[in-house]
Amino acid sequence: MDVTTEAPSKAGLEDVVAASSSICYLDGARGVLAYRGYDIHDLADHATFEEVCFLLWHARLPTRAELGDLHSQLADARALPEGVLRLMRSLPPAPAMDALRTLVSALSHYDPGANDMSPEGRQRTSVRLTAQLGSIVSTYGRMAAGGGQIAPDPALGQAANFLYMLTGQRPSALAARALDIALILHADHEFNASTFVARVSAATLTDVHSAIVGGIGALKGPLHGGANADVMHLLLELGQDVTDQKIESVVRGKLARKEKIPGFGHRVYRTEDPRATHLRAMSEELGRSTGNLRWFQISQRIEQIVKGEKKLNANVDFYSATTYYALGIPVDLFTPVFAVSRISGWTAHVLEQYANNRLIRPRADYIGPSYPQAYVPLDRR
Amino acid sequence: MDVTTEAPSKAGLEDVVAASSSICYLDGARGVLAYRGYDIHDLADHATFEEVCFLLWHARLPTRAELGDLHSQLADARALPEGVLRLMRSLPPAPAMDALRTLVSALSHYDPGANDMSPEGRQRTSVRLTAQLGSIVSTYGRMAAGGGQIAPDPALGQAANFLYMLTGQRPSALAARALDIALILHADHEFNASTFVARVSAATLTDVHSAIVGGIGALKGPLHGGANADVMHLLLELGQDVTDQKIESVVRGKLARKEKIPGFGHRVYRTEDPRATHLRAMSEELGRSTGNLRWFQISQRIEQIVKGEKKLNANVDFYSATTYYALGIPVDLFTPVFAVSRISGWTAHVLEQYANNRLIRPRADYIGPSYPQAYVPLDRR
Repeated sequence: MDVTTEAPSKAGLEDVVAASSSICYLDGARGVLAYRGYDIHDLADHATFEEVCFLLWHARLPTRAELGDLHSQLADARALPEGVLRLMRSLPPAPAMDALRTLVSALSHYDPGANDMSPEGRQRTSVRLTAQLGSIVSTYGRMAAGGGQIAPDPALGQAANFLYMLTGQRPSALAARALDIALILHADHEFNASTFVARVSAATLTDVHSAIVGGIGALKGPLHGGANADVMHLLLELGQDVTDQKIESVVRGKLARKEKIPGFGHRVYRTEDPRATHLRAMSEELGRSTGNLRWFQISQRIEQIVKGEKKLNANVDFYSATTYYALGIPVDLFTPVFAVSRISGWTAHVLEQYANNRLIRPRADYIGPSYPQAYVPLDRR
Repeated sequence: MDVTTEAPSKAGLEDVVAASSSICYLDGARGVLAYRGYDIHDLADHATFEEVCFLLWHARLPTRAELGDLHSQLADARALPEGVLRLMRSLPPAPAMDALRTLVSALSHYDPGANDMSPEGRQRTSVRLTAQLGSIVSTYGRMAAGGGQIAPDPALGQAANFLYMLTGQRPSALAARALDIALILHADHEFNASTFVARVSAATLTDVHSAIVGGIGALKGPLHGGANADVMHLLLELGQDVTDQKIESVVRGKLARKEKIPGFGHRVYRTEDPRATHLRAMSEELGRSTGNLRWFQISQRIEQIVKGEKKLNANVDFYSATTYYALGIPVDLFTPVFAVSRISGWTAHVLEQYANNRLIRPRADYIGPSYPQAYVPLDRR
């Protein structure tokens, strides 16, 4: 290591400040999350996902006219290029996150503005990608289930249109609002791993698509966005008819074997993740409205055990699983739905990085073979 | 910011240690670069790219039998899936780095082992991707120039096979060795931005393709791998017949306007980048052998001016431009050729990250609106 290099940081850059940002206020000790200073509970109670997108991008809430403009821009950008639809139909089956990564990358080839790196061009690309991610995930989900492609409905907001393009049915007001709130809750979370990937990429001054495709790849990981699908797999493995004793023995068994229970714990929060508070209530409400509270109850039981034994709190992924399930979203789409929301935060961070850029390039603490090693020719090895 | 968070680091994580690593030894003050303890000059003088791949992955030089095995594995993996070739033919024209990003992402759909996250599976994916990146870039370059697809030649090493698949001609020994050395010099460079993106991605336990696709997106940036193409664009803009006075006035004009001259300066090196030393000599040798030293001479003149005026040294990108140009590689492929080499380092780092993982999740220094902002309903804004 150079003499100029600082002492090794805590592993995983824990608590290390990587850059300044004015987007997300996150107080892990008090359990506070705010976008541009607005508390996440206020936004989830009163705002729409589109208002939150505007807030993340422009650092203030939109006027009615500005919100109308954004609705039009999003609606206009929702139809996918025929080449991307053709690619979607031709790709062999794979995890939906792999398809999302490939298809978002392919979008750039059909977007004449993809490499327009002017501030206006980058902003336009951000809006387009926010619209297009919803269309890709819903259309992919529909095709994977054997359905025919549904054209977007410009009268609907992002959340309702997503459910419409996925199911072919206009969703109930409750379902549309539940997904809208879920999108608000997932929209940004400071320098989480996928956002950090997007920012490190953007700091090389690469284009928006490249930065976002990197973010999608990182979100897929089970230690990140992949956890919401893993929560549902655990629930489905237990089954609706599982007894309390069985839940207890399965969960305690996993904990005893030091297996990770998906949906618990967070790098930053020392108290409950405020998003979990909201999603728990929503999962219960949706269960009640569909007449099936069973998945919610099983989740609660798991939460009690993990909290009691490990002092770990449920995180954003835990109750989003049953929320999405109650909305009829297939499990393979859970992590892609996270991306349908997080694209707003990713692009806000990428735009912020471009606006005041410095290459992000840390150092390693070298712990390998001493330098120099003598090179031994092949025939003497 | 939490009370637990450390004071803001230097911008861009400069000199901040992000993790331990035993792959790359980099001493910016002395101008030393070593892979697993082996000096880059020794490797460039004596090793092949395949030996370097083995060294990066396994932390020691291979025996003859192990090297033979690796040659076979690479040769076996070079043929591209028909679906990826079809996609390559159907993509609308775009920067070659966009195509590389999309096509590498698409590879995973045709690779039954893409989501095999066992240590052996991850290693196999790394070898396959190393072989396949060469085939994608060479075939893409050939098709973009209107040529027909060339089947890989298993008798050739990665460098020679790349030139063969690109040009349809078996390269001279000098050309093959020049590219081989360039691949060695570009193979790894500690926590550069694209490698760091790949590691942050891998730390979520996402798959190898996702991590590598993120790295490709970051490498594209003009502050990273994109610089080698920008160097050549500057040279071509000046033209072969440019006078010394004209070079002087163009370069000094750019410096006066605070424009960046591509190919100069480096975050880590305080002295000459050892890779630049090697590439300068190679660029001259290739110029001599092809009877055209003009691009080399113009490069030298630019180097003298920038060094004299700004005390900035040439970096790895500066003389790789004329080296690739002399090898007949189209300018649009310069950054992709960087990736054809760096895939070895990316995968070595991703494998190291998986083997001793901790989520990489830094914090932001929040400088936005104070918390809490009062939410004002839409009709009162």
